Amino acid sequence: MPHIELPEAPGIIAGMMYRPETAEPLNLLAEVLLRGESTLSRGNRETIAAYVSYLNNCLFCQRSHSAFAAAQLDGGLPLVEQVKADPDSAPISSKLRALLRIAAQVQQSGRAVTGETVAAARDEGATDVEIHDTVLIAAAFCMYNRYVDGLGTLAPVDPAAYEAMAGTIVENGYVNSIPAGAPAA
Amino acid sequence: MPHIELPEAPGIIAGMMYRPETAEPLNLLAEVLLRGESTLSRGNRETIAAYVSYLNNCLFCQRSHSAFAAAQLDGGLPLVEQVKADPDSAPISSKLRALLRIAAQVQQSGRAVTGETVAAARDEGATDVEIHDTVLIAAAFCMYNRYVDGLGTLAPVDPAAYEAMAGTIVENGYVNSIPAGAPAA
Repeated sequence: MPHIELPEAPGIIAGMMYRPETAEPLNLLAEVLLRGESTLSRGNRETIAAYVSYLNNCLFCQRSHSAFAAAQLDGGLPLVEQVKADPDSAPISSKLRALLRIAAQVQQSGRAVTGETVAAARDEGATDVEIHDTVLIAAAFCMYNRYVDGLGTLAPVDPAAYEAMAGTIVENGYVNSIPAGAPAA
Repeated sequence: MPHIELPEAPGIIAGMMYRPETAEPLNLLAEVLLRGESTLSRGNRETIAAYVSYLNNCLFCQRSHSAFAAAQLDGGLPLVEQVKADPDSAPISSKLRALLRIAAQVQQSGRAVTGETVAAARDEGATDVEIHDTVLIAAAFCMYNRYVDGLGTLAPVDPAAYEAMAGTIVENGYVNSIPAGAPAA
């Protein structure tokens, strides 16, 4: 049960409907990081988001961003599940694998990121902007995950709920995807 | 030394100058959470930010938000230092103390927040919106801290550097406080 009285909606959507003033920058950040212009594909960026959410054990974010990644990757959900279970053996590019290692360090702490891990990503062809964005995607999901679970929001069990959200996000993006709700009193 | 080639600027300012596209929502979020309309004072909100940054051991954020809090609190920097060292004995309101306990749980994990801690804050007079904003401030600093340290940005040692930043933020706010820099290639 949510810790405060929220609109009846799953996960972060409840928080965003409750507080539209903070929903705006939260959605804008997700839009730029996960869908904005980038040399990293949207599917790969959503995979980083799903992986960090998995490491933070945030059910709603893990399921939703896995669905968003799956909808934008050739390998679909089985590939995303493989990445979460073991990025080392999953059939992904060596560059994405190296970026996921940076993301896992960020999930622990910003201070856990090492020059070696960054150099390894660069050796696999990662650019400075890609490294920057990987650090910020991982950091941002350490926020989104804590926001979603810190409010005690609900995570649907039915995979169809996440597939429906994926359809909306892939088509319309993050900004304007939140239904208008009862703003905080 | 920073992990990627950043503009010569301290802490998050380097990352924001490097990537103005993400700087915009990051600053907007800080503006709404720490300076927007609220029943929590700006000084108290910056104290929550400084406390979480202290728990995450992020030197730049801890020093800067301590200075921003100090500039907007009657007790000044000595009070902020007392809060970071031991919120239980610091001379602050019982409501702020209860909100800091929620923030400390969020810093661990969103799943660490308990109904008991939230109920205790409510008993001290905290509203749902104040609890929501405390959760999101704490979550957001788990992002900002990881962004700042995950890029390996530099934290000035001289307290005067943070006092100067405090002057700018208190007067102008977060949005538009970042100098224009060389955007990411």
